[in-house]
Amino acid sequence: LTSRKLINSEDSCVDEALWGLVRATGGLSLLRGHRVVVRSDLQSLKGKVALLSGGGSGHEPAHGGYIGAGMLSAAVAGGVFASPPPTSILAAILSLHNAGASGILLIVKNYTGDRLNFGLAAEQARNHGVAVDMVIVAEDCAFDRPSKAGRRGLCGTVFIHKLAGALAEEGCSLDQIVSKVTEVLKGIGTLGVSLSPCSVPGCLPSFELPPGDMELGLGIHGEPGIRRSKVSSADEVVRTMIEHMTNPNSQSHLPLQSGDTVVLCVNNLGALSCLEMSVVTRATISCLEARGVVVARTMTGSFMTSLEMAGVSLTLMKADQEVLTLFDARTSAPAWPNLSSVSVSGRSCVTEAPVMSSKPQDDTQNEGPLSPVMRKALEKICSTLLEKQEELNSLDRTAGDGDCGNTHAQAARAIQEWLQGHVVPGCPGRLLSILAGLLEEKMGGSSGALYSLFLTAAAGHMTEGRSNTAAWATAMHAGTQAMRRCKSRECFNVYNVCLWSFGGNLANSKCLKPLKRRVLEQTASGVESTRDLTARAGRASYIAADRVTLPDPGAVAVAAIFTAVMETLQTGS
Amino acid sequence: LTSRKLINSEDSCVDEALWGLVRATGGLSLLRGHRVVVRSDLQSLKGKVALLSGGGSGHEPAHGGYIGAGMLSAAVAGGVFASPPPTSILAAILSLHNAGASGILLIVKNYTGDRLNFGLAAEQARNHGVAVDMVIVAEDCAFDRPSKAGRRGLCGTVFIHKLAGALAEEGCSLDQIVSKVTEVLKGIGTLGVSLSPCSVPGCLPSFELPPGDMELGLGIHGEPGIRRSKVSSADEVVRTMIEHMTNPNSQSHLPLQSGDTVVLCVNNLGALSCLEMSVVTRATISCLEARGVVVARTMTGSFMTSLEMAGVSLTLMKADQEVLTLFDARTSAPAWPNLSSVSVSGRSCVTEAPVMSSKPQDDTQNEGPLSPVMRKALEKICSTLLEKQEELNSLDRTAGDGDCGNTHAQAARAIQEWLQGHVVPGCPGRLLSILAGLLEEKMGGSSGALYSLFLTAAAGHMTEGRSNTAAWATAMHAGTQAMRRCKSRECFNVYNVCLWSFGGNLANSKCLKPLKRRVLEQTASGVESTRDLTARAGRASYIAADRVTLPDPGAVAVAAIFTAVMETLQTGS
Repeated sequence: LTSRKLINSEDSCVDEALWGLVRATGGLSLLRGHRVVVRSDLQSLKGKVALLSGGGSGHEPAHGGYIGAGMLSAAVAGGVFASPPPTSILAAILSLHNAGASGILLIVKNYTGDRLNFGLAAEQARNHGVAVDMVIVAEDCAFDRPSKAGRRGLCGTVFIHKLAGALAEEGCSLDQIVSKVTEVLKGIGTLGVSLSPCSVPGCLPSFELPPGDMELGLGIHGEPGIRRSKVSSADEVVRTMIEHMTNPNSQSHLPLQSGDTVVLCVNNLGALSCLEMSVVTRATISCLEARGVVVARTMTGSFMTSLEMAGVSLTLMKADQEVLTLFDARTSAPAWPNLSSVSVSGRSCVTEAPVMSSKPQDDTQNEGPLSPVMRKALEKICSTLLEKQEELNSLDRTAGDGDCGNTHAQAARAIQEWLQGHVVPGCPGRLLSILAGLLEEKMGGSSGALYSLFLTAAAGHMTEGRSNTAAWATAMHAGTQAMRRCKSRECFNVYNVCLWSFGGNLANSKCLKPLKRRVLEQTASGVESTRDLTARAGRASYIAADRVTLPDPGAVAVAAIFTAVMETLQTGS
Repeated sequence: LTSRKLINSEDSCVDEALWGLVRATGGLSLLRGHRVVVRSDLQSLKGKVALLSGGGSGHEPAHGGYIGAGMLSAAVAGGVFASPPPTSILAAILSLHNAGASGILLIVKNYTGDRLNFGLAAEQARNHGVAVDMVIVAEDCAFDRPSKAGRRGLCGTVFIHKLAGALAEEGCSLDQIVSKVTEVLKGIGTLGVSLSPCSVPGCLPSFELPPGDMELGLGIHGEPGIRRSKVSSADEVVRTMIEHMTNPNSQSHLPLQSGDTVVLCVNNLGALSCLEMSVVTRATISCLEARGVVVARTMTGSFMTSLEMAGVSLTLMKADQEVLTLFDARTSAPAWPNLSSVSVSGRSCVTEAPVMSSKPQDDTQNEGPLSPVMRKALEKICSTLLEKQEELNSLDRTAGDGDCGNTHAQAARAIQEWLQGHVVPGCPGRLLSILAGLLEEKMGGSSGALYSLFLTAAAGHMTEGRSNTAAWATAMHAGTQAMRRCKSRECFNVYNVCLWSFGGNLANSKCLKPLKRRVLEQTASGVESTRDLTARAGRASYIAADRVTLPDPGAVAVAAIFTAVMETLQTGS
């Protein structure tokens, strides 16, 4: 039996799915006793042409999702991949007729069962005096020489729903609509490619397709396509598809020339990721434009699926201004996407980025009286962190990646390298900014971001004119506040240390020296306070939340940094 | 390496996907040099709060798909499942600031990397004088005792995009928006379930999940969940999910009570079929309503995916009228669905089906002068078809299912059974209608539909008052025309026979008798004409189109039927 489905038999899933659609969608209703979805506001069809489509289930959102003002009036569903019974089709037709529709257009995909069952219901409806007509959608470009059943009806059907819906909404007659869509149909072509089979609920997959292989031109019921090959890049796959679709040697090709304008539908056959869908969309627009084709509109998503098949189909519709206007017309159908009516081709898609000045005022770059002591402090920090590399790694190994020491050593080497080639600016705020940028870039990971965050917030409070102890205190406080704002628990470890050692004490003092011992004691106390916090806060922390009793290695590192600063100040004083 | 992807490395897929989104969507633009998507009409932000979100890629359409009037102003993308760099976040913030936004709200999912990187960029932006604030979305209901990193941010983020977007569009201040969404966030909960892992392009699947197993509560990066079990029915899975989400013993539960009103999002994590999605939607609405919860709105689709993971998440948001108004507000964001603003709960979803009268006028049910000969003809047809059962099967075996004789025998037995219990009405049109219904129901398949189609169309032309030869001729012609209208090639075989034998000849005659020989000859000729048609027109015909040189078994059957009628008339005359 097939796996990976929340539905394991076909029995009830079609009814449940229809019920789900109708329950979730304000404007839809089920016709009692039938697998027929109709507009709830049938009275609004009075005097207009009503549109009915349908076919086997398994192609959701087709066709129920296309019901609404400006698209279908009703849709009939068969079992999974099975044509709906004529009785239900007739019931749908009569409902629309009884609501006062001036005529009913049946939009049918070219499959024998659908043609017959819709055709039969149409005859029965005619015997009831209903004006009915039928258009058959057969736009598959797969086969050079289609079988006698003709080309299959695929995702192009959705375009017909849209255009016919807009025409009906405008008040066009049945004949006018049939005539217009028949003309448009000549300029629609579809080709699919798949990377996996699909499986009817309760059945084995419809065919075998080895991983890494893809099949070109297969149908929406898993019918085999025209050839298999290894999966290649999206660009390559799309080029192959467009070439095949437009190859004049094929009886079912779409005649497409440079200068033509098209509407493009990139249709997810079921299980392709949205990321892949966007990649394919880009490739298709590029490929078409490279051939001189103007892409007027693009829709990307799941429009005519084949259960959970991992594949994509491309549908192209040649379009003039009239077609585009109909395409752009408003609809309330739930599966119609929120599209823009701006042309895809010929539009500028790039906005210039802002100039990211780091506000370098020249005077903040020069050395000043504080430069020597700050350089000394930095050198001490670096040597301390390099000494503690193994200790930090070891602490980190009990509950983390074991690379805390390495990360800090990396930062230390980056600062050492920077110190060799640069003067230490006299403005402490400027130095903190430089360090913030350096650590963000060279230390990396969350630690880099964390230090950078602290330093960036602190830097804003240290201008050249304000570099006394009170300013340092405010800056340290601002740094801790920034970490609190970003609400990261990982920040809180360090935040604890910082707040204990600097934030509170410094903010209340005028002079640094008397605080040295107190700061060092408080730092140790801050580190202790991290002992009963679990040590990992990254994605890994969801997996195992072992509580550790060792201090947090990040906090130990921060304490080491503060100690180094204090010792420098002591020596330097 | 992972299979079944059109993208096999992470290198360029993120940029290609962003490019695909922006190319396809009229209102979007890329910020040069960054993985940042912005509204093309940035000038419309002047004086309003701008909204920025983002995070790792692989969750498409999040977040780029939510950019547009009434939702986000910009989105920053990281690599697949990786947080975006602060430089790009800052570039996005400054672009919005430079466009004249009165403030910037960062909407961030609760992951350490995102919190830090967005937090850092926010600090940098503050240093540039920008008014920035940040809301963290952390609405995962999976863990009874969340790790210190807190609850994960999942699909509920999309609700925040929507509500904050509507508030910003209304002209609310940054503080007002933060305060409102912070309040709403308390009433949002999400839980996911998956039937398969996902895999980062170029990597192995993120974890193993045996077919037939499912995992509850796993994250959108493939982080393990809370427990595994066998896949059960959608109803069962949904009940388990809702119970877990609302269990007061869990620290991360959503307090949900009978009488509460919610907005529901049924989110495809990637590869679930649309059919399954609708089934889950139905189950969720039912489950909630059974608990007395009012479902005000439902959205179903791919909103916050996890690459190609086959799974679904449910997000519930408690909603009052203000929230619903914000939810219903218009947006041009391409990934926002076409929703109705009608309440899901409390709406009638069933429309009464039309009364399907088969127009039984009493007088058409009675026997008449033609009844005996028509009964005789039917008896002859049935015995002939039963005799020919094996011959027809054998003809069908060369290129079809080999069941043509069986199908016709089934029809014959159904007619025989009907003849035993009913009078043959004197009105031929009435008889043809009865036979049409009988064959549609009892013969089944395309053959049943085909005969039914012919007979239904013919019946409309045979009223009690019009049953002479000319009327018969017109009726037969109408039958063939109906088959031509339904444009089925399978019909054409039979159509050929009918047209040759009846359509043309009868239409030009006033009397039946002189035609008998000619009709029989023409029938034979019609059958001959099917020799060089391929024999299968169903879905199978796409697979193998072997040309056969035997006559079409369906045409042979029709010829046998006509012959039987002619012989009856001869005997009976």
